[in-house]
Amino acid sequence: MNAKMIVYTLGKVLQVVGLLLLIPLLVALYYRESCAWALAATAAGMIAAGVGMAWRKPENRMIYAREGFLIVALAWIGISLTGALPFWLSREIPSFEDAFFEAVSGFTTTGSSILVDIESMSRGLLFWRSFTHWIGGMGVLVFVMAIMPLGGNRSMHLLRAESPGPEVGKLAPKMRSTAMILYGIYILITALQTTLLLLGGMPLYDSLITTFGTVGTGGFSCKTASIAAYDSAYIDAVVTIFMILCGVNFNLYYQLLLRQAKPMLKSEELRWYLGIQLTAMLVITVNILPQYTSFGQAFRHASFQVASINSTTGFATADYNLWPELSKSVLVLLMLCGCMAGSTGGGIKTVRIIMAFKGVGREIRRMLHTRSVSALRVEGKPIHEETVVGVNLFLILYAVIICASTLLISADGFDFTTNLTAAIATISNIGPGLNIVGPTGNFAHFSAFSKLVLSANMLIGRLEIFPLIILFTPTVWKR
Amino acid sequence: MNAKMIVYTLGKVLQVVGLLLLIPLLVALYYRESCAWALAATAAGMIAAGVGMAWRKPENRMIYAREGFLIVALAWIGISLTGALPFWLSREIPSFEDAFFEAVSGFTTTGSSILVDIESMSRGLLFWRSFTHWIGGMGVLVFVMAIMPLGGNRSMHLLRAESPGPEVGKLAPKMRSTAMILYGIYILITALQTTLLLLGGMPLYDSLITTFGTVGTGGFSCKTASIAAYDSAYIDAVVTIFMILCGVNFNLYYQLLLRQAKPMLKSEELRWYLGIQLTAMLVITVNILPQYTSFGQAFRHASFQVASINSTTGFATADYNLWPELSKSVLVLLMLCGCMAGSTGGGIKTVRIIMAFKGVGREIRRMLHTRSVSALRVEGKPIHEETVVGVNLFLILYAVIICASTLLISADGFDFTTNLTAAIATISNIGPGLNIVGPTGNFAHFSAFSKLVLSANMLIGRLEIFPLIILFTPTVWKR
Repeated sequence: MNAKMIVYTLGKVLQVVGLLLLIPLLVALYYRESCAWALAATAAGMIAAGVGMAWRKPENRMIYAREGFLIVALAWIGISLTGALPFWLSREIPSFEDAFFEAVSGFTTTGSSILVDIESMSRGLLFWRSFTHWIGGMGVLVFVMAIMPLGGNRSMHLLRAESPGPEVGKLAPKMRSTAMILYGIYILITALQTTLLLLGGMPLYDSLITTFGTVGTGGFSCKTASIAAYDSAYIDAVVTIFMILCGVNFNLYYQLLLRQAKPMLKSEELRWYLGIQLTAMLVITVNILPQYTSFGQAFRHASFQVASINSTTGFATADYNLWPELSKSVLVLLMLCGCMAGSTGGGIKTVRIIMAFKGVGREIRRMLHTRSVSALRVEGKPIHEETVVGVNLFLILYAVIICASTLLISADGFDFTTNLTAAIATISNIGPGLNIVGPTGNFAHFSAFSKLVLSANMLIGRLEIFPLIILFTPTVWKR
Repeated sequence: MNAKMIVYTLGKVLQVVGLLLLIPLLVALYYRESCAWALAATAAGMIAAGVGMAWRKPENRMIYAREGFLIVALAWIGISLTGALPFWLSREIPSFEDAFFEAVSGFTTTGSSILVDIESMSRGLLFWRSFTHWIGGMGVLVFVMAIMPLGGNRSMHLLRAESPGPEVGKLAPKMRSTAMILYGIYILITALQTTLLLLGGMPLYDSLITTFGTVGTGGFSCKTASIAAYDSAYIDAVVTIFMILCGVNFNLYYQLLLRQAKPMLKSEELRWYLGIQLTAMLVITVNILPQYTSFGQAFRHASFQVASINSTTGFATADYNLWPELSKSVLVLLMLCGCMAGSTGGGIKTVRIIMAFKGVGREIRRMLHTRSVSALRVEGKPIHEETVVGVNLFLILYAVIICASTLLISADGFDFTTNLTAAIATISNIGPGLNIVGPTGNFAHFSAFSKLVLSANMLIGRLEIFPLIILFTPTVWKR
C-alpha cells in the first residue's frame, strides 16, 4: 500500500478546505462576529497540518483502487472532524458529537440538523454550515484535482470512489480537465440561481445560503422554517427548478455546452428521473387537494416537496407530516430512489433502479427459456456483468444498512417510523424524515450514539457504501 | 405450452383438496354445526370439477419450467378461491374478499386474520381454517405428488416452483418418493406435537388446531388471545420448541432418520438460524426485563415471540406492541429474515441472507484485487453463479414488493408503521405486524383493495415471487 501517497493527498485536501474556510471567515469579519476566531483558528490549523502532510512529494505516485477508496474515506472523515471545529470552538454548538453531526450532514449534502433555533446562530457559522454543502456536492477530491495537480497517476480511482453512480465517465482525456469542467458547470449553475434569487428580492446572504443548499442538494437553510420562511411563489418556483436541475447527471450539461443536445434528449435515466417526479407530483397534488385552497396551491407545495425529496435536497415549504398517509408513503419511496448518477444528490440513484428492473426482466426470461442470457442494456449500451452484480449488491447493502441503523437507534425509544425514516433520510442524504425528524423537527433528541450511527449513515450514503466498508476491512491495512 | 397438462394437474389438485375438506366436514357433523352444508357443498363442487378437469390423461405429459410455474401459481390461487367458499357460503364471513383473505392466509401459512372474535366461529370452520395451514405448509403439489402419480415427467419443475429456498434437492431418485418422505416426516412431527399438547392437558380439538398452526408455521389459533389463552408455561415451551423445529430444513430430518447426523451438525444455515434466534432472544429478554417479574418470565415471552416471528408462525403469548422500541425493531428484522430453506416457513430464508453476505465479501475482494473471482461456497459446496444472481434479484424484488404494497395500502390512511409491517408480515407469511396489525389486532379494518394487495403479498411470499410474476408475463401465455 502506498501510505505516503495517501498522507500526501490528505494533506492537499486539508489545505484546500482550510483555504475555503477563509470565505466564511470573511463573512464573520464583515458582520463583526466573535465566531471569526474559531474559523480563523481552524483554517490556520488545517492549512498548517495540510502543508506538513504534503511537504514532500512522494516519489512513487502510483495509486490503485485500494488507495483510492482509502483516500476518499479518510478525506471525508477528516474534513468532517475538522469542519466541525468552528461550531464547537465557538461554543455555538457546545457538544462535539453535535458539531460533528452537523459537519457530516453539511459535507455529505444531507441537511439533517441538530439545531433547534437556526436564527440564533452567528451568520459566519451559518455560512460555513451551508458552504460545506457546496464543497461536498461536487466532491472534495474532485475539487482538489481541479485546482491543484495531485501529481499521482490513476487519479481515476479517486473520481470513481467519490462520484455517485455505478459507472464513472471521463469527460476529458485528463482527469484534471474533467474535474475543472465539472466545477465550471457547478459554478455557472450557482451564479445563475443566486442571481435569480436576488431578482426575487431575497437578500444576498440568504440567496447564497439557499443556493449552496440547492446546488449541493443539501438543504441547510438560514431559517428554522426553511424556504417556507420567504413565503414567495417565485422563490419556491426558482428553488424547485434548481433542485430538479441539480439532481441531473452533470455530464449531460457538459454535452449540452458542447452543443450536443442528443445525449440529454435520449437519456433513459433522465426520462425515468423526470417521469418518477412528475407522477409523484400529480399523485400528491390530488391527494392533498382537500388541505389547500386551490389546485395551484396544492401543486406548488406538492412539486416543491417532491423535487426537494427526490433530488435529496431536503428544503421544505410545507409540513408533510400533516399530509395524508399515501403522500407520505410516496415521499418515503422517493427518498430511497434518489436522483441521477453523476449529480450532486444522493439516494440509490435512478440508473441503479433501472438496472435492477431490467435484471429482473432478464431473470424471468432466463427461468422460462433456460440459458438465453444477454447483456443488460442501459442508455443503449451493454452493461458489464460485473457492474450488474455490483449494483445488485449495492441495493442489498443499502437495505441491510437501513435495517441495521434503524435497529441501533431504536434503543433511544422513539417510534418505529421516526427511526426508519431517520435511517433512510441520512443514508440517502436527504435531511428530514417523518414524525420527530420531519420537516419541522430535527435530530437534536437522539443520543450521542445514535448521532454517530446516523453520521456514519450519511458518509456511507454519500460515498456509496464501499469506501467505508473497505476502511474497516482488516486485510486492506496489510502492507 | 402444454395447456392440457396444466388443466389435468389442476384437476388433480382440486380433487385432493376437495377430499381433504371431508375432514373438517366430519368435525362439523360431530359438533352438529350448521356450517356442515357449506363444507359439504364446497367439497362436492371441488371434487366434481376436479374429476371433470382430470377426466382424460393428456397424451403429452411433458412439462417444462414454464408449465411448472403456471401450475403452481394457478393451483394456489384456485385452492384459495375455492377454500374461501365454506366461510362465505355459511355466512360466517359475510364478504367474499374477507373469506378469500382468510383462505389465502391459511394456505400460505401466514396467519393474518380479519376475524375480530374467533370464538364466535363454528368449530368446523375453525378446523378448516387451521387445516389449510397444515395443507399449505408442506405444499399442495408436493401432497398431490405424494398420494397420486401425476404421470407427468419432470415433476421436478413443480417441486422447484413450490418449495421454499434458492435450490431444491431431490431426496430420492423418484419425485414421488421425495414427496412421500417429506410428508412422512411432516405427519410424524404433527403426531408428536399433538401428543405433547394433549399430555399438557389441552383438549384434543385445541391440540390439533395449535399443532396445525405450528407445524405449518401458520399461526391461526382457535382463541382470539392466541396461545396466551392457555396461560401455561408447559404449552408455551412445547409450542416454542416445535415452532423452532418447523423452521428447519426438512431434508436434515430425513438425513437424521437415515442415521446421518453429520449434515445437521455441520449445517451452516442451521447454525445461522439458531444463532440469530438465540441472539434475538437474549437481547429482547434483557430489553423487556423491567416489564416482567423475573428473568424467567421475560425469557419465556421473549423466546416464544422470537421463535414465533422468526419461524414465521405468528402465534403470540404477549403483546409486543407494548415492548420497548428496540425489541420491536429486532422483531421486524426477524420477520424479514425468516427461517431455513426447505422448511414450512416463509421470509427471505436464512440461506439467502448467508449468500448475500458472502456475495458482499467477494465483491469487496474483487474491488480491491481486480479479477480474483471465485465461486461462493455455502455448506461447503460451490454455488452456481446463476443461483447467486437469482438470490440477489430475489432480495431486491422482496424489498420492491414491500415498498410497493406499503404504498398501495397507505391509501387507507393507517399509520406508516402499520402499513409497512402489514406488508412485511404478509409477504413473509408471518401474520401479525406492529400497531393496528399487532398481535392483539387484526386486518379487518383494511379496505377490500388493501386486502387484495395483502392477499397477493401472501401468495408472492409463499411461492417466492417468481411463479406469480410469470403468471402476469404476457409472453408466457403465447402458444
